[in-house]
Amino acid sequence: MKRKMGAAPWQDAIRRAAAAPGVINLGGGLPADAQFPRAELSAAFTRVLQAGAGQALQYGWVEGQAQLRDRITERLRARGARVSAEDIVVTNGAQQALSLATDLLLPRGAKVGVEAATYPAALTLFRARRLTPVGLPDGRATYVQTTLNNPTGTALSDEDYRSLARRRSALIEDDAYGDLTFAPGQRPPFLVTAPHRTYHVGTFSKTLCPGLRVGWLVVPRAARERARRLKETDDLQANSLAQAVVNDYLGHVDFDRRVDVLRRYYRGRAARLAEAIRRSIPSWRFRFPQGGFCLWIETDAAVDERRFAELALDEGVSFDPGSDFQVGRGAGAPTTLRLCFSYVSPARFGAGARRLARAWRRAVVRPSPRSKRR
Amino acid sequence: MKRKMGAAPWQDAIRRAAAAPGVINLGGGLPADAQFPRAELSAAFTRVLQAGAGQALQYGWVEGQAQLRDRITERLRARGARVSAEDIVVTNGAQQALSLATDLLLPRGAKVGVEAATYPAALTLFRARRLTPVGLPDGRATYVQTTLNNPTGTALSDEDYRSLARRRSALIEDDAYGDLTFAPGQRPPFLVTAPHRTYHVGTFSKTLCPGLRVGWLVVPRAARERARRLKETDDLQANSLAQAVVNDYLGHVDFDRRVDVLRRYYRGRAARLAEAIRRSIPSWRFRFPQGGFCLWIETDAAVDERRFAELALDEGVSFDPGSDFQVGRGAGAPTTLRLCFSYVSPARFGAGARRLARAWRRAVVRPSPRSKRR
Repeated sequence: MKRKMGAAPWQDAIRRAAAAPGVINLGGGLPADAQFPRAELSAAFTRVLQAGAGQALQYGWVEGQAQLRDRITERLRARGARVSAEDIVVTNGAQQALSLATDLLLPRGAKVGVEAATYPAALTLFRARRLTPVGLPDGRATYVQTTLNNPTGTALSDEDYRSLARRRSALIEDDAYGDLTFAPGQRPPFLVTAPHRTYHVGTFSKTLCPGLRVGWLVVPRAARERARRLKETDDLQANSLAQAVVNDYLGHVDFDRRVDVLRRYYRGRAARLAEAIRRSIPSWRFRFPQGGFCLWIETDAAVDERRFAELALDEGVSFDPGSDFQVGRGAGAPTTLRLCFSYVSPARFGAGARRLARAWRRAVVRPSPRSKRR
Repeated sequence: MKRKMGAAPWQDAIRRAAAAPGVINLGGGLPADAQFPRAELSAAFTRVLQAGAGQALQYGWVEGQAQLRDRITERLRARGARVSAEDIVVTNGAQQALSLATDLLLPRGAKVGVEAATYPAALTLFRARRLTPVGLPDGRATYVQTTLNNPTGTALSDEDYRSLARRRSALIEDDAYGDLTFAPGQRPPFLVTAPHRTYHVGTFSKTLCPGLRVGWLVVPRAARERARRLKETDDLQANSLAQAVVNDYLGHVDFDRRVDVLRRYYRGRAARLAEAIRRSIPSWRFRFPQGGFCLWIETDAAVDERRFAELALDEGVSFDPGSDFQVGRGAGAPTTLRLCFSYVSPARFGAGARRLARAWRRAVVRPSPRSKRR
């Protein structure tokens, strides 16, 4: 179902094909449908409509519903952030928080610092806004996934963390996977250590469900009014219904416990996909992730990425091409890819890995035009 | 509840005060809570969750859900438009459709043609994007409410319609109130007569409920790919839950019949507010609206608008200041205002009009600093 932004138009066609029945879709970065709390959300929906239609169906304030912002604030304060509900703008998912922060911070033509591998929809956004992604710690502002990087599944390196901590430039801190680390004890987000220059992006897409599109942007006080005005010109306000349902839901469940369950659930899936890949394609390298939804694969061969994706579809499996995630990747650099363990049933991981192995063998052995002539 | 964008920051404070209990809020442009089909929406919600969580809770395609776009297409075709589902991008309400069209069509610094009185959130958007609003039919692109103008409650004049029909510049056609005309027989929208240059904006906010934030942009074919990319960089996609609920709802009700009921309902309210205003403030002039949610009031006196709004709040009533809607309004021009009959119970129209009359008398008799000195 999900389309993750890609640089190349051919990827749209591939993504649609990947959604076909029979294809084992290891791309996309979707959470598991099975973990959506349908019964609890239904109950929440019923309650908010019984309480009166105003909150859920009528227009609301640009910054979002007050109680929901209180609950988000509470969760951030539990991690050490000194934020108040006034610092928060509820957004249409994390992507809108990201685009608001970008539009607030980065004038056309500016440089934006990014990690070596990073979230593709952020890169596409930056390019669409005529910004130039550059390596850390440079850039007029920096986009980082401090706690957990998508796609690498790791925290920001100590070196990068320290060098960014020393600078004064603004940070767009994407915490989309911040709740889904497999083990505790990670470094605090920059929202805690550098709140005056951190635009912190969060979302319920990974821990609850993405279709509700409830995310948030924590804005430094000095930019609050501008952030609200921009949100208002862009689309007036976030979805009242989704906000009311999420708010009611959070008031009726132990959300921390749910998040713990999800961490164990996705860690178990990560282990099963890792095992399947090691068995079928032992030449691929990856670090076991510290959280999130995916394995980041490095290979020893530089194959034609598009052809590999097409061969994989031909074998009945799909993945996310590594070049989507990488800036300044040299021509001829070894192929990389992202494999998600979050969405497809683990029962299909073995078959998915075997299909990938067949596609990889076909991609690698393809004779180049030059070798043909010999 | 609703904040409609205003030019002046003081209006935020006034808007929040207007939401206080006891204040009769004749501003805001909100639909009537009583008309939200709560039971039908609950049933739709239950059905979509029973059908499987994927459609409602998971990520979806950037352009929106296919069946919902089919239904929107069908309604537009019934009005004579030759559109297909591929021409439609589902948006986070009409405002996002408007901001997408603006970003697609109008580079910073361009002139945008607007009607003499028009939708304030469009004006605020244009100014935030560093565009200069100018009178019709000028501008690199033109923003029009062809079928029904908010705030004037009238269709585009024959003269403006003809002059825009002759031009070749792009049109942003805001059809937010297009379904809510009190009588049939109006001119076709430009989507019918000039589809290749018309960016047509629609929404379920007025006919169903605004809290769902389901709107759409019909894009000329040549701009389709750019529109989808822009929507994707801005926020990935519209709310899956709201789309699924609206789609299911439309499949289970006679929506045309509902729209007919709403037309009669709001026409009845318009008549009652018109009567109350005529009785309490006979000096105010307005044309009975051809549809929509409001009366557009012209007065003979130029009062201090902010003071009038504060006096009105002091009397326990609120309204939308006319300057929000007008471009190039000369200093010293007679005061105008928008009064909405859509939201407040008609049982309070009489009291609202009397409070307005008191505030108006106080605003008009206020001695100017100059007359004080005499």
